Amino acid sequence: MSILVVGTVAFDAIETPFGKTDKVIGGSGTYISLAASFFYQNIKLVSVVGDDFPQATFTNFNKKGIHTEGVQIIKGKKSFFWAGRYHLDMNTRNTLKTELNVLADFDPILPENYRKAEYVFLGNIEPALQISVIDQLKVRPKLIAMDTMNYWMNNSRPALDKVIKMVDMLIINDEEARQLANEFSIAKAAKKIMQLGPKYLVIKKGEHGALLFSGEQIFFAPALPLEEVFDPTGAGDTFAGGFMGYLAKTKNITYTNMKRALIYGSAMASFCVEKFGPQRLLEIKNSHINTRVGQFVDLMKVSLK
Amino acid sequence: MSILVVGTVAFDAIETPFGKTDKVIGGSGTYISLAASFFYQNIKLVSVVGDDFPQATFTNFNKKGIHTEGVQIIKGKKSFFWAGRYHLDMNTRNTLKTELNVLADFDPILPENYRKAEYVFLGNIEPALQISVIDQLKVRPKLIAMDTMNYWMNNSRPALDKVIKMVDMLIINDEEARQLANEFSIAKAAKKIMQLGPKYLVIKKGEHGALLFSGEQIFFAPALPLEEVFDPTGAGDTFAGGFMGYLAKTKNITYTNMKRALIYGSAMASFCVEKFGPQRLLEIKNSHINTRVGQFVDLMKVSLK
Repeated sequence: MSILVVGTVAFDAIETPFGKTDKVIGGSGTYISLAASFFYQNIKLVSVVGDDFPQATFTNFNKKGIHTEGVQIIKGKKSFFWAGRYHLDMNTRNTLKTELNVLADFDPILPENYRKAEYVFLGNIEPALQISVIDQLKVRPKLIAMDTMNYWMNNSRPALDKVIKMVDMLIINDEEARQLANEFSIAKAAKKIMQLGPKYLVIKKGEHGALLFSGEQIFFAPALPLEEVFDPTGAGDTFAGGFMGYLAKTKNITYTNMKRALIYGSAMASFCVEKFGPQRLLEIKNSHINTRVGQFVDLMKVSLK
Repeated sequence: MSILVVGTVAFDAIETPFGKTDKVIGGSGTYISLAASFFYQNIKLVSVVGDDFPQATFTNFNKKGIHTEGVQIIKGKKSFFWAGRYHLDMNTRNTLKTELNVLADFDPILPENYRKAEYVFLGNIEPALQISVIDQLKVRPKLIAMDTMNYWMNNSRPALDKVIKMVDMLIINDEEARQLANEFSIAKAAKKIMQLGPKYLVIKKGEHGALLFSGEQIFFAPALPLEEVFDPTGAGDTFAGGFMGYLAKTKNITYTNMKRALIYGSAMASFCVEKFGPQRLLEIKNSHINTRVGQFVDLMKVSLK
């Protein structure tokens, strides 16, 4: 059994009100895989980098049960690079630079031993590539979840609609949900999005928590009120990785278990924002996660009897 | 036993993206009292109106167990009037008109039979008046809670700090909490505010729910994801009224019971926004509240076992 993760592995340069970094390792594939690896250690990563990317990162990934045979290394080319600056509220940011580099010609090829993955997470990449990944699978996975973004809604809507129909679950943020459904109300947007195909929908609201929708059911997981939010980069992907990792670990894709997975995803995201880039995810241990999940339980626990 | 409520009783004219009203009955005292009256029917309202205010409103209040001997009616003067316009997100609004009228000279006088109230809620009025109300009490109440706003932080900070020290609980919104503590992080702001005196702090986040703080403890009550938010006017006061009413009904001011009260307050607020002004609060019955509280329970229910 394995989790297939498709996403970017890249360099980020980040400015926040609290500091700035030069290029650090980033990308959706990085955050998703690292977060999932705390729960399940057979992750098959599909991505692309240039020959400027440090091999040591992959060695480290491999030690954590993240397989990288599916990460193409393009000779003579550079890795995807993003630079951004967060505003004081940490919810809004400006992109300062986007250099697609190897990502411009990315054609994800799944190694043979990737093609029977039971859990699949398609990070935010071009919808046509997400379709291509699904088409390469030899067995229908237990669960296919995907992310996307406003750019694809504006520029690749037919392919996006097609891939949304092919997946079981969409994990997007509130702004994206509003745009996808053309509805301001999150509750209305959720209904419209599920009509596009997916049985499950997660809407991430950053510091305001996350909602899980399925049919008429709604579950809400709060975000932990943190004293310090240092860098939100990758928090949404970390959430998704924790969520998928927990489902794979527990081998249970019921709605009831997805509610638990939402808490674990939120806990992972709460670590991610504590330091620049994925640094905090490289430091924590499972005991930290258990303690933090306990804080979420306290935050939510109420009995009306 | 009674709940003492001090707040405005006024006229509002409201514009939202979905419609507009001429003058409707409004004011913090109105929303707080109406919401509390679903739980506890001995509410002593202190306020001031002009002789333009309809007596029928008070007759209706009295039927609901809201006593109005403490509402001064000033002959030859007009009631407080506020006109505002909400933006599409319903979280931001412009004030179009504020006519203080009778509120300019408001001097709250507690009738004799008001002075032994066990639960006191001081709505958002000038801090010096909130102090005056506390000074008129003959017995220390079980719980004094208060609201305030940015205007008093900017213009009456010494009196505001004094009254904050005198109360057990502050119920304010996130923007106000940030300004009061001069901290962007809600978690940090909460700690600083509790150092000003109150043992309990509720921070309301509108559509993003509400947080209850006491010492190191934090509880979060989500807001229900509503398909239609018609008019947010009074939602925060309705929340506070439901919260206080539930505490008074259950005669229990433990932290555990306050968590429950937060859910009931949130449920009341979710009704308030469904129609213009306090209209929906005049229509619903206790059975509606119970059903809605059930929806909150479903929204939050998770077992990590």
